Amino acid sequence: MPDRVDTVRKVTHIDNVRLSDDGESVIIIDQTQLPNRVVYLPLSGLDECCEAIAALKVRGAPAIGIFAGYAIYVLSRRNASLPYGKFAARFHEQKETLNAARPTAVNLSWALRRMENVVTANADLPVSEILDLLKKECLSIHREDIAMCMKISEYGLSLLRDGDGILTHCNAGPLATSRYGTALGPMLLGRERGMQFHVFADETRPLLQGARLTSFELQKAGVDVTLICDNMASIVMKNGWVNACFVGCDRIAANGDFANKIGTSGVAILAKYYGIPFYTLGPTSTIDRSCPTGAQINIELRAPEEIKEKFYREPMALPEVNCYNPAFDVTDHTLVAGIVTEKGICRPPYTESLKKLFSGQD
Amino acid sequence: MPDRVDTVRKVTHIDNVRLSDDGESVIIIDQTQLPNRVVYLPLSGLDECCEAIAALKVRGAPAIGIFAGYAIYVLSRRNASLPYGKFAARFHEQKETLNAARPTAVNLSWALRRMENVVTANADLPVSEILDLLKKECLSIHREDIAMCMKISEYGLSLLRDGDGILTHCNAGPLATSRYGTALGPMLLGRERGMQFHVFADETRPLLQGARLTSFELQKAGVDVTLICDNMASIVMKNGWVNACFVGCDRIAANGDFANKIGTSGVAILAKYYGIPFYTLGPTSTIDRSCPTGAQINIELRAPEEIKEKFYREPMALPEVNCYNPAFDVTDHTLVAGIVTEKGICRPPYTESLKKLFSGQD
Repeated sequence: MPDRVDTVRKVTHIDNVRLSDDGESVIIIDQTQLPNRVVYLPLSGLDECCEAIAALKVRGAPAIGIFAGYAIYVLSRRNASLPYGKFAARFHEQKETLNAARPTAVNLSWALRRMENVVTANADLPVSEILDLLKKECLSIHREDIAMCMKISEYGLSLLRDGDGILTHCNAGPLATSRYGTALGPMLLGRERGMQFHVFADETRPLLQGARLTSFELQKAGVDVTLICDNMASIVMKNGWVNACFVGCDRIAANGDFANKIGTSGVAILAKYYGIPFYTLGPTSTIDRSCPTGAQINIELRAPEEIKEKFYREPMALPEVNCYNPAFDVTDHTLVAGIVTEKGICRPPYTESLKKLFSGQD
Repeated sequence: MPDRVDTVRKVTHIDNVRLSDDGESVIIIDQTQLPNRVVYLPLSGLDECCEAIAALKVRGAPAIGIFAGYAIYVLSRRNASLPYGKFAARFHEQKETLNAARPTAVNLSWALRRMENVVTANADLPVSEILDLLKKECLSIHREDIAMCMKISEYGLSLLRDGDGILTHCNAGPLATSRYGTALGPMLLGRERGMQFHVFADETRPLLQGARLTSFELQKAGVDVTLICDNMASIVMKNGWVNACFVGCDRIAANGDFANKIGTSGVAILAKYYGIPFYTLGPTSTIDRSCPTGAQINIELRAPEEIKEKFYREPMALPEVNCYNPAFDVTDHTLVAGIVTEKGICRPPYTESLKKLFSGQD
């Protein structure tokens, strides 16, 4: 479908997740089909929404949050005729099911909790009005994410100079978030302002989000991008081509340890070795203040077939060979030069700088 | 062909390269078909021998050397009726053609030069007797490699304890060498003696030698192997599962810097960070005393299609996306706990310990 691809000239304006005009479904770009096909999927059932998250048709912590808000709204509309008690009970049940689709990203539960707060805080209103408020809430979550990404991109851009080389891992661009993205935001925003960066995108095995999504987004936006295998990050840094590493994050602990796509901790260790500053970029909603350190973050394990068979013409290892396939790893805060949020750039010691972000909220 | 696979119960006895009983052909396992099919190819023509090297049907520097010895012998037999002058001229011509099939492989030219020395040093003998000497020489090249691998395996095994976890990168096992291999030798030898190790095999992008060959070899030999993506080495080390890293080498500089499959330097940096000893294993013929440091080692760049298209059902990145695809990287000697050769284990400072290996030879 080349014409559909051609309509996506400016990737920063891709609507990766949105509510249908009639509010009956949430429409996503099926990220598993990229970069070869841009396919939009309208989803309206609980099972297909859960499957979209689990199968990574929609992925990226902030995008999952936005999607979950729309999804629980779409699902709730079907219960419009129920009395409040049953409506709220059904809401809770569906929320829990959606929440279980992926364990590591904090944004999923955060967005769903925010939606449920609307239901519980308005028990005195008719269900139809609660639905109106739910619609407002999920649109707000999305709108706020766009504004948040813009601010994160601005702060991130302040760390770069025109012509810099930047290494990134996995995908924290528009497809994973909204509009500019987080880790890719500074490159996209800088490009719009006439700057040019030289981005090295790790392909990010096993699901190749760097190859399929990051290089796609940057190429479409006119950013100079070079795709590498994950194991080439060391030589690229040694060659002196990298001035900074920018990655996203799925959950940030109170001490600055953070979970992100598998391999991120390795990039951070290499950056430390080569003396290159390493930053993670994400909204404050990614900070899990109830989680003291990275040791408490639950790491999702996925199927061996993702390593051995997915994408390939034929299996790449014997069926009886064991695989270990963690979806994320935890990067130690001592490896992180800064955590870039929509409220500013936190510097070590993170226990203090992260706490300051929330001052006045307790 | 499950029955053919089933015959290969003990991978340490795979004949990856051998002379046919009648001496009419050299028989190889087609490594490009692994792990899905074990296909033996009898080769007897110059073109098909060259193609086998160029297309990586036979790969691994020592295995290429062994193959080249057999191949030039098989080809020479057809010239048995020629007078010496024409026989020697034809030998030289075919040798040069074989040598050009993969000009960067050191062992290829080394083995062919050794075979040609037999021809030039015995000009006074009948061609039939020269052929007998050539047969002895190619069998010697093979036998010597087996003995060398055995010694390297013994020295490597002395660094391990039963039950250890070992991480390896790419493939330096029987398929790449003969019998035990170099980096995989200690695990295979230990297994034969009733020990058990827990090996983590990096899949080794882009050509997946770790997935396709290393996990195949270890699994078939009954070694406990877990396949991981390259970017999972950090979490596996952090989990405390790795007691040592064992990798092969393609060229060792006089100061202990060494070139090996792309990604090796990253593994070494991670090992240093996590306090895990990192070893490279290879024959002394890999030491290039004319090369003072790793900075003088030329790094081969390969085609972007290897990253974006090879193996896949469909392209994994847009066709216009740039790729950087170095086949090797250089690991700094400061990251290396020891260099294991058939003459013993060298320890830092390598400038001295490597030189000692050759004492008496200058």
